[in-house]
Amino acid sequence: MNLPKKATIIEVGPRDGLQNLKTFVPTEAKIEFIKQLKSAGVQEMELTSFVSPKWVPQMADAPAIIEECLDEETRNFVLTPNQTGIDRLLSTSCRNAAVFVGVSNTFNKKNINKTTEESLQELEPIIRDLKAKNFFVRTCISTSFYCPYEGKVEIDDVLALCKRFEGFGVDELSVADTIGMANPKESFELFSTLKKALPNIMITAHFHNTRGMALANVFAALQAGVDRFDTSAGGLGGCPFAPGASGNVATEDVVFMLEQMGIETGINLRRVVVALENLQPHLNKSYESQYFKLAQLDTNQHV
Amino acid sequence: MNLPKKATIIEVGPRDGLQNLKTFVPTEAKIEFIKQLKSAGVQEMELTSFVSPKWVPQMADAPAIIEECLDEETRNFVLTPNQTGIDRLLSTSCRNAAVFVGVSNTFNKKNINKTTEESLQELEPIIRDLKAKNFFVRTCISTSFYCPYEGKVEIDDVLALCKRFEGFGVDELSVADTIGMANPKESFELFSTLKKALPNIMITAHFHNTRGMALANVFAALQAGVDRFDTSAGGLGGCPFAPGASGNVATEDVVFMLEQMGIETGINLRRVVVALENLQPHLNKSYESQYFKLAQLDTNQHV
Repeated sequence: MNLPKKATIIEVGPRDGLQNLKTFVPTEAKIEFIKQLKSAGVQEMELTSFVSPKWVPQMADAPAIIEECLDEETRNFVLTPNQTGIDRLLSTSCRNAAVFVGVSNTFNKKNINKTTEESLQELEPIIRDLKAKNFFVRTCISTSFYCPYEGKVEIDDVLALCKRFEGFGVDELSVADTIGMANPKESFELFSTLKKALPNIMITAHFHNTRGMALANVFAALQAGVDRFDTSAGGLGGCPFAPGASGNVATEDVVFMLEQMGIETGINLRRVVVALENLQPHLNKSYESQYFKLAQLDTNQHV
Repeated sequence: MNLPKKATIIEVGPRDGLQNLKTFVPTEAKIEFIKQLKSAGVQEMELTSFVSPKWVPQMADAPAIIEECLDEETRNFVLTPNQTGIDRLLSTSCRNAAVFVGVSNTFNKKNINKTTEESLQELEPIIRDLKAKNFFVRTCISTSFYCPYEGKVEIDDVLALCKRFEGFGVDELSVADTIGMANPKESFELFSTLKKALPNIMITAHFHNTRGMALANVFAALQAGVDRFDTSAGGLGGCPFAPGASGNVATEDVVFMLEQMGIETGINLRRVVVALENLQPHLNKSYESQYFKLAQLDTNQHV
């Protein structure tokens, strides 16, 4: 069994994790959370997003977050869904952009009112311009396994889309099981295909734990050669398509599994737990993380 | 990736799942639960156990359960920890016994006040006698990965113990990650070793989801050639060493993952959900099962 020696965690909690939370988390608490996650060893992070505050009020404080949290040590991403977001990003000193598109037309249309092809055509000049300005460009590929409207998504469609983005010059493809429906066999197959077809681009796996399969999918992706994983501290994020169900796989659970298998992540889990404990009073929900739950129990088991 | 075409679920909910529950579940409700699980397609099941009602009051109704639930279609196991239990089992028409032992001495000692070797010596004549009487003998091997007292358990110790039981003539070894600490790399390694060394004996994997890794471990064990899994409907069972944490992996979550990968289990999940819904009023806890939670949500996602 061929597993990597190291893996990189891309912490998406502050952006993907918090964005759909109804309760506004005070900017100071977000900044503290981000800084504590960095001090826990996180080296890549989705900080916030430049989206309309009307649609995503939780991200209205993006300028303050960026102002306070940019640093040299971390690859700090800001999600920018369109030219307006890009223009705002260009006015900051952040040089890592994240864009997104859904493989499924229906999903993309319901999400941003464009077909997948229309999104691609809008993104191509944006990405080429960002690359000309020496940005690191991350592309989040939604519904890479299943679409809540169309069902199963074909590997060939994901591959074709990824190749288009490779042609635009992106640095990273974050390939997501948006509704947490992928099984580990499918993960192994898709990521094996992508790693072979796109050897010169960073491939990141983004799993949701909606059906409990996220860690199995991480294990499968590792076997396919993937060593980058999007995770969310505390499993923050939920599943917008099944409110009440689990969403993003928890950073702690992934890090614990990786470290137990001897795969270095550089992340100190005790510090992640402290960051989550400090954030908790500002949320009206509990965390979806087995590691966090166990750490809170009065038990003599080492977690 | 070489995965089996079919897998067998050994449902342990009625015994392992319920045994430590403080609230006594009425015998009629247990019988209904067992019968509904069988009608859902379960073909092997731990029904109950012959243990002292003083120590495990939940299992005090074992005779009534056996009386009502034995059938020809299912392999019905009764757990029998010692000669007294065996004597009681012999007075019934059940011909499938389950015995248990811990690889870790400390664990075995705290559990049944005997060293592992003392347990082996007690069990050898019992097993030989059961085999002479044409019983199917299942052996549950606890702490096969980690012990809550001793830490990491070595593969060689598990293998040596399993070989002793093979020598006694047992039919099945259920190899358990009792505290839910195993990672999928360890699962692959242990089960690969056992499948190679013991090709003529049924090897079953028994995982707990305490740290969220159960399905990853199932996936790893499948790759090692394992096609038998102990699971508990609703994730019933908890973890006696970390009260409040998850315990046995949920039947629904395992079946869903297997079926999604094209591995037949013969189990109808809608019927398992109904069995759980009917049992729920008799419990004072919620289920630890992503599939069950999703099935209860008002969502248009197919689960």
